[in-house]
Amino acid sequence: MPEPTTPLFDTLVIIGPGLIGSSILRRAREDRRIARHLVACDISPEVRARVAELDIADAVEADPVAAVRGADCVIICVPVGAIAMVAAQVLPVMKPGAILSEVGSVKKTVMDAVQPLLAAHPDIAFVPAHPMAGTEFSGPDAGFATLFEDRWCLLTPPENTPPAAITRITTLWEMMGARVRCMTVEHHDRVCAIVSHLPHLLAFTICGTADDLADETRSEVLDFAASGFRDFTRIAASDPTMWRDIFLNNREALLELLDRFIADAQAMGEAIRTGNEDVIVGRIRRGRAIRRSLIENRQA
Amino acid sequence: MPEPTTPLFDTLVIIGPGLIGSSILRRAREDRRIARHLVACDISPEVRARVAELDIADAVEADPVAAVRGADCVIICVPVGAIAMVAAQVLPVMKPGAILSEVGSVKKTVMDAVQPLLAAHPDIAFVPAHPMAGTEFSGPDAGFATLFEDRWCLLTPPENTPPAAITRITTLWEMMGARVRCMTVEHHDRVCAIVSHLPHLLAFTICGTADDLADETRSEVLDFAASGFRDFTRIAASDPTMWRDIFLNNREALLELLDRFIADAQAMGEAIRTGNEDVIVGRIRRGRAIRRSLIENRQA
Ligand SMILES: NC(=O)c1ccc[n+]([C@@H]2O[C@H](COP(=O)([O-])OP(=O)(O)OC[C@H]3O[C@@H](n4cnc5c(N)ncnc54)[C@H](OP(=O)(O)O)[C@@H]3O)[C@@H](O)[C@H]2O)c1
Ligand SMILES: NC(=O)c1ccc[n+]([C@@H]2O[C@H](COP(=O)([O-])OP(=O)(O)OC[C@H]3O[C@@H](n4cnc5c(N)ncnc54)[C@H](OP(=O)(O)O)[C@@H]3O)[C@@H](O)[C@H]2O)c1
Repeated sequence: MPEPTTPLFDTLVIIGPGLIGSSILRRAREDRRIARHLVACDISPEVRARVAELDIADAVEADPVAAVRGADCVIICVPVGAIAMVAAQVLPVMKPGAILSEVGSVKKTVMDAVQPLLAAHPDIAFVPAHPMAGTEFSGPDAGFATLFEDRWCLLTPPENTPPAAITRITTLWEMMGARVRCMTVEHHDRVCAIVSHLPHLLAFTICGTADDLADETRSEVLDFAASGFRDFTRIAASDPTMWRDIFLNNREALLELLDRFIADAQAMGEAIRTGNEDVIVGRIRRGRAIRRSLIENRQA
Repeated sequence: MPEPTTPLFDTLVIIGPGLIGSSILRRAREDRRIARHLVACDISPEVRARVAELDIADAVEADPVAAVRGADCVIICVPVGAIAMVAAQVLPVMKPGAILSEVGSVKKTVMDAVQPLLAAHPDIAFVPAHPMAGTEFSGPDAGFATLFEDRWCLLTPPENTPPAAITRITTLWEMMGARVRCMTVEHHDRVCAIVSHLPHLLAFTICGTADDLADETRSEVLDFAASGFRDFTRIAASDPTMWRDIFLNNREALLELLDRFIADAQAMGEAIRTGNEDVIVGRIRRGRAIRRSLIENRQA
């Protein structure tokens, strides 16, 4: 960890100070060992005005090119579908030796789009990060300084990334309270498909299925939701743009997993149809065993 | 509500003092306006010994025939698959004018099996109840007196049930803190299929899907479960016998709903495959709208 007088970064730029970006800013504002100078940049005038009002950055910029000039670290915190475009804007003007990072929930498609740009800028280190933390709210008002406390942050740096850059981004997330792990983009996307993307897809879907029911039944879903439906759909409250981008960008891993899940659900349906008690009880037991592992892992 | 000196029932018998049954006993022990004399009956010697030790009943019986003789209310609290058999044992020896109730999570198959028995005992009122409350634990140690507080209890009495009997069972559940609603068995089973049975089936299933993944990914599911998987599978911790019985007994409503859900999930998969953003965003928006209704309904 650096001395109190030497911050980890001189100038840290957050592009897209929404839930995630404004949480980084808030934390860095509280702990000035993270960066001497904090810059927020957003395309939306309302977001910029709100960030200034909230006073969570030392400077607020509209133009990403102006924002990143001279910075030693730039973190892109916009929706997954816009990350590569922002990277293309800022890479040509970033200072040699600077670090470019982003916090998107999907990594492979972003890496595929950014890799050719990086080839033209070998003096910039690219260290993608995915903080496994969030709420169902978005925008600069939704952030808070402790969002990353005790949460995982997954890094997916390309193979040739200078270790010093990986160490600095690791230190950044550790200073914000997170535990850090490195993995490949492919592995990241597969893991997130099962732990997050498929559960969200199913939660959005069952809400729709419930909504299609006859009126009388539908209103009672709301009355009696405490019996399972409620917990099951809590995650269905999240932002449409973010989830559209996640589903489209992690298409391959997600659809493969959805096919497997549907086959498993159909097999369970078939066991119920034919009254195959051994299969039914076996599947319930496996579900319980996984839950028990979660509890032992202190995640429950 | 009755005067403090006149309990609602003279002798109340609980058959199967597990999670639900022992919670009724505990509440009735605390509030003696519910019944003067409390009898617990269970086939398992271990359960009987434990109920005696816990001191939550005035008498503990092994034989249901002996237990129910002279009682003015009998509540069957055994797994759904065993309810009709217990009803057949006790109906012939119950006192004329007494009330028979049960607390199973599925109603249609139980009613179909009990209705012919009732025809032979027109002097017994049958008032099935389903308290929409529970935990993932079972057995007499799992119960607690406040389990039904602020929860719904659904009654599904047959059409010809004397209103006085319905009123007494309603009063019982209200004295235990629940809100009561009456509905047909068919409607009950449809509502529970969507609010509880389908979410449980999907939660058990996704745990199995995760368990089938390559070792490396599977262990990380446990590490990163906080990103959605955990909430989604919380309900997958419940008892295998209970859920086997629920799935088999609510087969028709559940399988119809599972088919609809799978069709909806496949349509979402197809929209992701073809990049149909309007469909994807539309479905996410609907999911959020349902969640918002839940919050307005103060269930979230
Ligand atoms: N929320 C989570 O749970 C979570 C968790 C981990 C990672 N992530 C990832 O973090 C990223 C941000 O998510 P978030 O929840 O923080 O979103 P958010 O609250 O909506 O913030 C995104 C911000 O980026 C701005 N923006 C959009 N396009 C831009 C562009 N081209 N240039 C500059 N600014 C732009 C948005 O402005 P407008 O509002 O005007 O569009 C908004 O202020 C996403 O990639 C997401 O996948 C999210
Ligand atoms: N748990 C919930 O969330 C919930 C919610 C609402 C309604 N329900 C319904 O309530 C009922 C009981 O569930 P529970 O969770 O309380 O189960 P539980 O804790 O397992 O209790 C059931 C008890 O019944 C005993 N039993 C089984 N067969 C019997 C028989 N033929 N005669 C006498 N006793 C018998 C069991 O003994 P052994 O242990 O020896 O088998 C056990 O002590 C089920 O119909 C369930 O569908 C449950």
